[in-house]
Amino acid sequence: MAGKISFSSDYTKGAHPRILERLSETNFEQLDGYGTDGYCKSAADKIRSACAAPEADVFFLVGGTQTNQTIIDMLLKPYEGVVAAQTGHVAAHEAGAIEFSGHKVLTLPSFTEAGNTEGDGAVYSDQVGKIKAEDLKKLLADFYADDNHEHMVFPGAVYISHPTEYGTLYSKAELEELSGICKEYEIPLFLDGARLGYGLMSRRTDVTLQDIARLVDVFYIGGTKVGALFGEAVVFPHKVPTKHPVPIIKQHGALLAKGWLLGLMFDTLFTDNLYMDISKNAIDMAEELRKGLVEKGYKLYIDSPTNQQFIVMEDDRLKELSEHVRYGFWEKLDDSHTVIRLATDWATTQEDIAELMKYL
Amino acid sequence: MAGKISFSSDYTKGAHPRILERLSETNFEQLDGYGTDGYCKSAADKIRSACAAPEADVFFLVGGTQTNQTIIDMLLKPYEGVVAAQTGHVAAHEAGAIEFSGHKVLTLPSFTEAGNTEGDGAVYSDQVGKIKAEDLKKLLADFYADDNHEHMVFPGAVYISHPTEYGTLYSKAELEELSGICKEYEIPLFLDGARLGYGLMSRRTDVTLQDIARLVDVFYIGGTKVGALFGEAVVFPHKVPTKHPVPIIKQHGALLAKGWLLGLMFDTLFTDNLYMDISKNAIDMAEELRKGLVEKGYKLYIDSPTNQQFIVMEDDRLKELSEHVRYGFWEKLDDSHTVIRLATDWATTQEDIAELMKYL
Amino acid sequence: MAGKISFSSDYTKGAHPRILERLSETNFEQLDGYGTDGYCKSAADKIRSACAAPEADVFFLVGGTQTNQTIIDMLLKPYEGVVAAQTGHVAAHEAGAIEFSGHKVLTLPSFTEAGNTEGDGAVYSDQVGKIKAEDLKKLLADFYADDNHEHMVFPGAVYISHPTEYGTLYSKAELEELSGICKEYEIPLFLDGARLGYGLMSRRTDVTLQDIARLVDVFYIGGTKVGALFGEAVVFPHKVPTKHPVPIIKQHGALLAKGWLLGLMFDTLFTDNLYMDISKNAIDMAEELRKGLVEKGYKLYIDSPTNQQFIVMEDDRLKELSEHVRYGFWEKLDDSHTVIRLATDWATTQEDIAELMKYL
Amino acid sequence: MAGKISFSSDYTKGAHPRILERLSETNFEQLDGYGTDGYCKSAADKIRSACAAPEADVFFLVGGTQTNQTIIDMLLKPYEGVVAAQTGHVAAHEAGAIEFSGHKVLTLPSFTEAGNTEGDGAVYSDQVGKIKAEDLKKLLADFYADDNHEHMVFPGAVYISHPTEYGTLYSKAELEELSGICKEYEIPLFLDGARLGYGLMSRRTDVTLQDIARLVDVFYIGGTKVGALFGEAVVFPHKVPTKHPVPIIKQHGALLAKGWLLGLMFDTLFTDNLYMDISKNAIDMAEELRKGLVEKGYKLYIDSPTNQQFIVMEDDRLKELSEHVRYGFWEKLDDSHTVIRLATDWATTQEDIAELMKYL
Repeated sequence: MAGKISFSSDYTKGAHPRILERLSETNFEQLDGYGTDGYCKSAADKIRSACAAPEADVFFLVGGTQTNQTIIDMLLKPYEGVVAAQTGHVAAHEAGAIEFSGHKVLTLPSFTEAGNTEGDGAVYSDQVGKIKAEDLKKLLADFYADDNHEHMVFPGAVYISHPTEYGTLYSKAELEELSGICKEYEIPLFLDGARLGYGLMSRRTDVTLQDIARLVDVFYIGGTKVGALFGEAVVFPHKVPTKHPVPIIKQHGALLAKGWLLGLMFDTLFTDNLYMDISKNAIDMAEELRKGLVEKGYKLYIDSPTNQQFIVMEDDRLKELSEHVRYGFWEKLDDSHTVIRLATDWATTQEDIAELMKYL
Repeated sequence: MAGKISFSSDYTKGAHPRILERLSETNFEQLDGYGTDGYCKSAADKIRSACAAPEADVFFLVGGTQTNQTIIDMLLKPYEGVVAAQTGHVAAHEAGAIEFSGHKVLTLPSFTEAGNTEGDGAVYSDQVGKIKAEDLKKLLADFYADDNHEHMVFPGAVYISHPTEYGTLYSKAELEELSGICKEYEIPLFLDGARLGYGLMSRRTDVTLQDIARLVDVFYIGGTKVGALFGEAVVFPHKVPTKHPVPIIKQHGALLAKGWLLGLMFDTLFTDNLYMDISKNAIDMAEELRKGLVEKGYKLYIDSPTNQQFIVMEDDRLKELSEHVRYGFWEKLDDSHTVIRLATDWATTQEDIAELMKYL
Repeated sequence: MAGKISFSSDYTKGAHPRILERLSETNFEQLDGYGTDGYCKSAADKIRSACAAPEADVFFLVGGTQTNQTIIDMLLKPYEGVVAAQTGHVAAHEAGAIEFSGHKVLTLPSFTEAGNTEGDGAVYSDQVGKIKAEDLKKLLADFYADDNHEHMVFPGAVYISHPTEYGTLYSKAELEELSGICKEYEIPLFLDGARLGYGLMSRRTDVTLQDIARLVDVFYIGGTKVGALFGEAVVFPHKVPTKHPVPIIKQHGALLAKGWLLGLMFDTLFTDNLYMDISKNAIDMAEELRKGLVEKGYKLYIDSPTNQQFIVMEDDRLKELSEHVRYGFWEKLDDSHTVIRLATDWATTQEDIAELMKYL
Repeated sequence: MAGKISFSSDYTKGAHPRILERLSETNFEQLDGYGTDGYCKSAADKIRSACAAPEADVFFLVGGTQTNQTIIDMLLKPYEGVVAAQTGHVAAHEAGAIEFSGHKVLTLPSFTEAGNTEGDGAVYSDQVGKIKAEDLKKLLADFYADDNHEHMVFPGAVYISHPTEYGTLYSKAELEELSGICKEYEIPLFLDGARLGYGLMSRRTDVTLQDIARLVDVFYIGGTKVGALFGEAVVFPHKVPTKHPVPIIKQHGALLAKGWLLGLMFDTLFTDNLYMDISKNAIDMAEELRKGLVEKGYKLYIDSPTNQQFIVMEDDRLKELSEHVRYGFWEKLDDSHTVIRLATDWATTQEDIAELMKYL
């Protein structure tokens, strides 16, 4: 593995150096456990401020699947399921963590088969990974119209990811429409922001952090993939929907003893705009990569405006590439072509991109 | 909080400096996720070697409750429960994490009411926190003797902690007896070693790491409380009892994306005997503390041979103490006395002890 | 088995003949499924009236364990457990059905070791199977007094059985005290009435059906053991605590397709006082049995005022008895004595008692 | 409701009169509880014989959802899900009972959009409700081909219904192919036979009870919809895959106290070919109904060879019909047409059909 440059994912490196410094500086401070320390308070304050959500409840959990499982269990009544795209992380890639806690994932289609296969960029689809308001509306309307709906799983919350697993983004108008439907049906909207920074810093988004805090009922700001060693900051802009979140978190095995580590990392990321700055780096590098790919005639599989770029490669070429570069296998397109993912991150450099381009 | 010396617990500090150094050194290495990296392999090898268990399966999880929940769920069939002391962590202090995954905790008494209240050290009990072989044998025999046992929860595994929540330790003979009973009934014995180093380095133990690997079916080597930022190394000396441990770990939200952080920390702890050396420091400091306490006439609540010391204090004196020292509240003994816990750790210094003694 | 008279339990016979008649009369009526038929409505009305609880929600489920599991799951939040006597059915004899749905059973002691072993009836204890108000109060007060209670299982409901598994009964004063404590802590009180008729018709009770409806938050009127083929009528005197009870019932596999069978049986039992009349028969027969036992010098194990009588027998005598009579094995008292249960029911006759007495 | 003839479902009537007679005859026999009585043994023997499966384990449960939930939980490991058609009862109409026990339902498409809309019967589709071997094969192959499959839910069993929820049937060749795939992947095949009799007696099937016992790993013989008051006979032709099925059944609230009621009903149904005879009646009546419908020019929605017939009706005509007949609403086809279900059963008479035809 050593020696190869890697674009396989955005969780292959440790943490931003400033975080490591602060871990060293505070190593012997002797802090209270389980997130009751001052760094967690400070980080929560900074996040509330950045979200323009002064009443928000903020928690710090360790990883994405854990966070999705714990939040969804907080949101749902026992007879409710969560609505998600069939490609959503909770539907497809968490080994049944949602079902383990007793809830069904009610899936909506996420693919638009049609797409522009011609011209610059050769984009296949701009809908991949997202749910459509009309599909959600139909699912909810059909459910309540069904005489037998008490024998079915109630749609009790809606899960979206932003960026999605395919790097795509919702527009502000789309979020507003989804939010409106959820309000109409009185079910919470939950936004998985494992890669939130890369969404916020995209050059092709009109959605801000404050928009998200205004439009959804709960979301998280991903740290694992954006500059922290690990950690996700969960934000309930309008209060957490349970009187006792701590035992629920504990019960899921998700209450970190040295919770201040999470507080410290997010406090650092939300000081001097660091989270946004390093997210922007990933976007700059991704745009440079994208430009290079298009110039070299690669077919983009998805029109991704964020740090994950997906291209279609001939299998022969891919074999060559794999001698120099680690990439993310995505799926087989046909007998002789493969879709791969190339992900930039908070620490990707122009030298990295230049080296990658050499092999493409 | 600042300014006060703290003996409240053994998870108030960060990590051993060597760990922080290695985190910095490896920060940009670009490693594979989910525990498939080389550091996890290296750490597992070193642990297998230290345990003299060359066939062992080793996993790295993040925290104690998560580890207990995940392991117990791996061990039990759906209709089985886990036997534990009523003071065991899984029975009392995990917010129902075991029941959340569908299993009952079948409790055994852990208190011996009688104890030596006179003389040097004023020890109340030497059984606190442990289960007795005879109690376990009786529970198992009674269960199978009951005609209605198919309407009851099957005892499917035995959980012990070593050191216990009260700092006490099993002797090798006791472990052998418990192990023998478990073998006879063909149920696994699981040892929670959240503070294992402090047990192994106790001056009053005859139990080695190899003994544990020989006598139990699964145990873990605690990192959170012994020099790591977080992390527990789970060891199945005779193979993990499931074909697919990874999806079970994932399903519990317990699969860390940057798993190499765990590997790196345990690799460091199991290099040059570091884990044992820093554990010994905690014991040396605890013995010094204990000696001072007895000299000053304090009544020890438990005869703890490890890093947690429990004393009985008059409430007036305790109020004074609390102005200078952070301690662990344990329980009210009567209207005017309180039991407190004073914990040393891998980083406690003689200066810390000296300062604490000033206020006692 | 054939030929032997049986007092082994109160669920060894089918149903009151009036129920079988009505099943035949209505066999081809073509009724709506899942409890939405007219018989369920009529039975619910009669039960509301008998309980003097005009606003009550009434559901009909199939059996005891199913009912306990479903109700408790309706009452509890995910991080809550149910408080019960350690001898309570939910704690001891449901194969972990409560834990299967994710909740811990928090147990209180139920034995008073002391008891009158002299004189008429040789009663061992009058507390067996019941919980004491002071124990409940202590559990709740201790829980909230504990600084770490957010790491523990919240006591979210209280389960009592009336009659208990040992045939004992709460007095009205005891129920009022338990009810008061539950109100103070804002947690529901749940009364398992699998044998409710036998409690209400006891000669030594001051508790009426209306008292129960007034003092508890949910209870059920047992049919399986009191004249029905099967079935338990669940009563929430002050409304069910969930917006959608049907999917919860369905999810537990507890929604009977031909729900009208349950409605029809309870409609019959609550017509012309049938439920009370046949319950009284069991009590009359139990009192006759008890008188005979005391006259013959048997030691009663418990002072049971209901249909279950418990006696201590020498093992030699028991062997003889078992050639003629089927009884319920309860437990071994010592090497040469066994506690057995003799249960009368709604259909026991004086001839049955007379025959039993021949062999005693 | 009274006065209207009903074809709304096959669970609107009580039980075959012979069953009611035997309930009366045995009402005071005093039998052992929980399925340990002689009638359960006798019924199991007769079923083993009818299945030509002398080693089969047979259990009697109460209803369909309960049975599906309990069996699937017996079959699956914690990290496994069950594969089913998206229209399968476990996927769509059990209020999340499978997820409640921790398992995901992995769905396969069940619709063939194309169909013969011309000619006699105007059949829309002959695939509705069934899964295709090629789809199953692809799901399994894709799963194991995916590098990340340990982050996904393992397909651990396959669920099919026969007849399906749409009245359709698998051919013997289709069952053999599905069985072969399951054997290849070493996962059990589970056949939901809630309406099994109506499948076996179809005039258009080549599948026998013995075929099913030979080809699947577990199935059940529906009683609720085929002549019993309630009850499903679960058959594991090659042994139940758990050492202790009783506590699992108990834990699901599915162990009936008076289990002999189930034994008695199935003993009756499997005496003198009663189950097959009454199933044949439903088929004869359904074929008569079908013939009449086609003659009157109705469009059949599905080519159902069993007791459920589905037709497309104009909404105006349907309104008229509903004044005289109770039918099952199935779905809206378009703005002016509705699909309804007309179900015959074991007790439907020619007079019933004649009366129904008057209104059609």
